[in-house]
Amino acid sequence: MELVVMSGGMDSTTLLYHVVREKASVREVKAVSFNYGQRHRKELHYATASCRKLGVQHRIVDMAFMATLLAGSALTSDSVAVPDGHYAEESMRATVVPNRNMIMLSVACGIAVAEGADHVWAGMHAGDHFIYPDCRPEFIEQLDYTVKIANKGFISDHFSIQVPFIHISKAEIADWGHRLEVPWEDTWSCYKGGKYHCGVCGTCTERREAFVNAGVDDPTHYSDLTRHF
Amino acid sequence: MELVVMSGGMDSTTLLYHVVREKASVREVKAVSFNYGQRHRKELHYATASCRKLGVQHRIVDMAFMATLLAGSALTSDSVAVPDGHYAEESMRATVVPNRNMIMLSVACGIAVAEGADHVWAGMHAGDHFIYPDCRPEFIEQLDYTVKIANKGFISDHFSIQVPFIHISKAEIADWGHRLEVPWEDTWSCYKGGKYHCGVCGTCTERREAFVNAGVDDPTHYSDLTRHF
Repeated sequence: MELVVMSGGMDSTTLLYHVVREKASVREVKAVSFNYGQRHRKELHYATASCRKLGVQHRIVDMAFMATLLAGSALTSDSVAVPDGHYAEESMRATVVPNRNMIMLSVACGIAVAEGADHVWAGMHAGDHFIYPDCRPEFIEQLDYTVKIANKGFISDHFSIQVPFIHISKAEIADWGHRLEVPWEDTWSCYKGGKYHCGVCGTCTERREAFVNAGVDDPTHYSDLTRHF
Repeated sequence: MELVVMSGGMDSTTLLYHVVREKASVREVKAVSFNYGQRHRKELHYATASCRKLGVQHRIVDMAFMATLLAGSALTSDSVAVPDGHYAEESMRATVVPNRNMIMLSVACGIAVAEGADHVWAGMHAGDHFIYPDCRPEFIEQLDYTVKIANKGFISDHFSIQVPFIHISKAEIADWGHRLEVPWEDTWSCYKGGKYHCGVCGTCTERREAFVNAGVDDPTHYSDLTRHF
């Protein structure tokens, strides 16, 4: 079994299409998403929609406790504003949720062990590295090793965490997804979780830039296109 | 701040008394417990009682999703019987919850990062190693390293996971707790979570043996004392 960690954004949706294309003929593909009280939990509906379209079993794990326990991030707290601008800016530190990916990947790996999955797939990419330490290759390598030690004797010998985008940019993911014919309207990025993508928060900025740099048509409706990236 | 992971058993309760004794005069001590749908969640009331007695802030994190996602363990599933006997027996594999400690420690470390804790304390001991790979020193070492990488720039430079019992036996913990005057009646071990300690499951067997080997008086009422250890 292949287990894909899905947020419903363009990276993890492209990843799901990739894994289904590569693996679904030989092994079952499943997906898991996390409700961690994120302001943009609207993204989960998009994850569900993509999984339904591809016939992939999808589970949403309720980790609402993270919003209260790890309060202080703009992604989970109503009292901290989502900063506008580029990931490279200092203000983006406000969007870090303490130990988020380690917690989520630990749960995903628990499911993988319980159900005998061969791989857990996650969509971190090179553009995430600057701001989010838990998106860097050295973190994934260490985590992979730690999971194997933690579950020795209970985990498949072939088990590994797969991060095929870890060394490529979001623009390259847009290009990859374009070739896989990912329907971009099935993906949600905006941290603010409003009716439309705001166009100015960190992840909207990254999304717009990725499509432009890849030369891929962006069908997204943005509320505000005035801010440069 | 010092953050103690508490189950309410004799190991983590001794740990709490140890940390309070060593650290409470210089830093705040807090405790966190996890409700992961364990059959013996009764242990959480014992954790709360000890924290109240020591004036330690105590939080119980609801991780009930673990029971459904990681089904198949005797600790969380009503359809799998809790095996009797010693940890060293093959049957005890049924009490393994996939990736349990990695998930819990990842959440505890998330709290530690969010609240600027210097240490996360956990009560694994040498007797756990045989059966539970996520109680072994090599796992804790790797996890400690992984947490630091995952939270680089957001975590205290002094941060570490502390496991003072990792190389000692449960009997030595009984002795240690005895010297700290831990009220053993405030601790719960039995996996079956009945009215009294059953006396025959893996953790009751370990508990009885620990007190006997340490020469410490065991005030616990066991339903069944017929089984040898």
